Amino acid sequence: MILTVTLNTALDLTYGVPELVPHASHRVSEMSERPGGKGLNVARVLSALGHETVVTGFAGGSTGTVLRELLAGLPATDAPGPEAPGTTPAPTTPAPIAPAPVTDALVTVAGNTRRTIAVVDRATGDTTQLNEPGPLVTADEWAALLGRYEELLAGADAVALCGSLPPGIHVGAYAELVRAARAAGVPVLLDTSGEPLRRGIAARPDLIKPNADELAQLTGSREPMRATRDARRRGAHGVIASLGPDGMLAVTPDGIWQAAPPARVLGNPTGAGDSAVAGLLSGLVEGLSWPDRLRRAVALSTATVLSPTAGDFDRAAYEELLPRVGVEEHTPAAR
Amino acid sequence: MILTVTLNTALDLTYGVPELVPHASHRVSEMSERPGGKGLNVARVLSALGHETVVTGFAGGSTGTVLRELLAGLPATDAPGPEAPGTTPAPTTPAPIAPAPVTDALVTVAGNTRRTIAVVDRATGDTTQLNEPGPLVTADEWAALLGRYEELLAGADAVALCGSLPPGIHVGAYAELVRAARAAGVPVLLDTSGEPLRRGIAARPDLIKPNADELAQLTGSREPMRATRDARRRGAHGVIASLGPDGMLAVTPDGIWQAAPPARVLGNPTGAGDSAVAGLLSGLVEGLSWPDRLRRAVALSTATVLSPTAGDFDRAAYEELLPRVGVEEHTPAAR
Repeated sequence: MILTVTLNTALDLTYGVPELVPHASHRVSEMSERPGGKGLNVARVLSALGHETVVTGFAGGSTGTVLRELLAGLPATDAPGPEAPGTTPAPTTPAPIAPAPVTDALVTVAGNTRRTIAVVDRATGDTTQLNEPGPLVTADEWAALLGRYEELLAGADAVALCGSLPPGIHVGAYAELVRAARAAGVPVLLDTSGEPLRRGIAARPDLIKPNADELAQLTGSREPMRATRDARRRGAHGVIASLGPDGMLAVTPDGIWQAAPPARVLGNPTGAGDSAVAGLLSGLVEGLSWPDRLRRAVALSTATVLSPTAGDFDRAAYEELLPRVGVEEHTPAAR
Repeated sequence: MILTVTLNTALDLTYGVPELVPHASHRVSEMSERPGGKGLNVARVLSALGHETVVTGFAGGSTGTVLRELLAGLPATDAPGPEAPGTTPAPTTPAPIAPAPVTDALVTVAGNTRRTIAVVDRATGDTTQLNEPGPLVTADEWAALLGRYEELLAGADAVALCGSLPPGIHVGAYAELVRAARAAGVPVLLDTSGEPLRRGIAARPDLIKPNADELAQLTGSREPMRATRDARRRGAHGVIASLGPDGMLAVTPDGIWQAAPPARVLGNPTGAGDSAVAGLLSGLVEGLSWPDRLRRAVALSTATVLSPTAGDFDRAAYEELLPRVGVEEHTPAAR
């Protein structure tokens, strides 16, 4: 199984309004609620790809209860389920990927899990985001998480450490989790930003997946190749820089590749990075080559931008895009 | 006791942000959560004035549970409580008004109680409001509310019917509740807007408390005296028009009065109308004269505008303002 860690889980609310006007009153015309935080988003995509996933991190209070109820409903019941024994799929349709279970191994905290609110202007699709800070996590709760994490590592093929830190968690927390994964021999991907990323990298994670802003904040450079190499020197074994609509640049011990979608697409980029993490980790666990992992990551994140629901990927678009992602290896001279 | 009915209760969230910028991401720096919906706000003020209050209406789902937990905490524990037997207040301080209990008689529904979100720009104090529509209420749930309401009317000295209707409730719902109160001989104040107000007035409530916009929507006139008289002709026995910073105009079977605060004040008008309703109803139950009821309503709503917390009133300001509210009777010639 693949383990994802979300220290600051969230109940993600999406509100549709005709147009957000500051200092006016708005009647929300449509709303949806779903379990969020980057690691939970990664788990949802891994499940859709057929990978059994366990999620840990913190959840608490009434919002934590709602989050866990929604999590228990994953994979969504309208997704194709595993075939019942003895049934044969119709010969003309390709066998669908059966979604795999997502197991809740969250640690309960006394504080209230945060809400995030995405206010979507229905006319333009533009989104205004409001994020609560999250519960204050105590030292005892952090110790409980460390214990749970080490138990789960024993059965994990890979682990993703995702997102921001809630109040009360020390800034070196991800470094501690990276070291524990490496001690257990489990490949570890770190996807965070700012000081927690800087500290986490020094503990030598197998992979980081910064976007251009995160990379610039870490290294001071906006030139992708220079910044990515700098990030490797700081301790990350492999750096997959996401370049938005331009695809991804992978600088790894095995080589350097650039992957790009066949065309630029328009849509909502929310969750595209989380889909890329799911693509990279599932490809790692399946033993795919770097080019194939990157193809999957780029196709998934592009199919997420194209999906009408923020954070979900459009499966038909994913399957159509996958063989069309271009991957180019940088020759040693170019290195 | 005074009964308040809130068909569309709400969990009111207030988010502080440095500045709300459309299409940007915001980290919420401060947040608070409290039970809301107009009738619950009225009950909170009545409690602070020492009036025992029962609240009914609908609550459901996880947000309904949180709302009821917060409601159970009213009156706030830091408010002055009833004196313990045998203790004597210090002779130099006036005896504080002991807050009275607020009793939860809400009807549980299957749907989720709505949230409202007030996003406050910390620099300017300007507020952007996002209101969820509320749960879909079924015919059986409405029947349960009617039964509960009729039981409660038997013990009520007055009733306030407050706010918007949730989805599923027919537009003539308030008319039905007004008729039941009148049949039970309980004075009834209706505080809503739009078509529910128009229908409700036809059932002849004792009082309505529209603001200038609600009155204009109802009557087509922005001239307060004309619009208020028109509203009476439509069926309301008494009309108390709130004129914002200019105070209130009362057109009643006993006479016409205009009441105004001693000076215009700046602040957050959220909840000022609910405080005015509490002032009017408490004055009615205490048998105060119309001028004294209006003095109380204007002083309470002005003290609500002045309070740093939206929807609360500043007690010191209230006590200081009360004797300074000007009330002028319109002579029969002016009528």
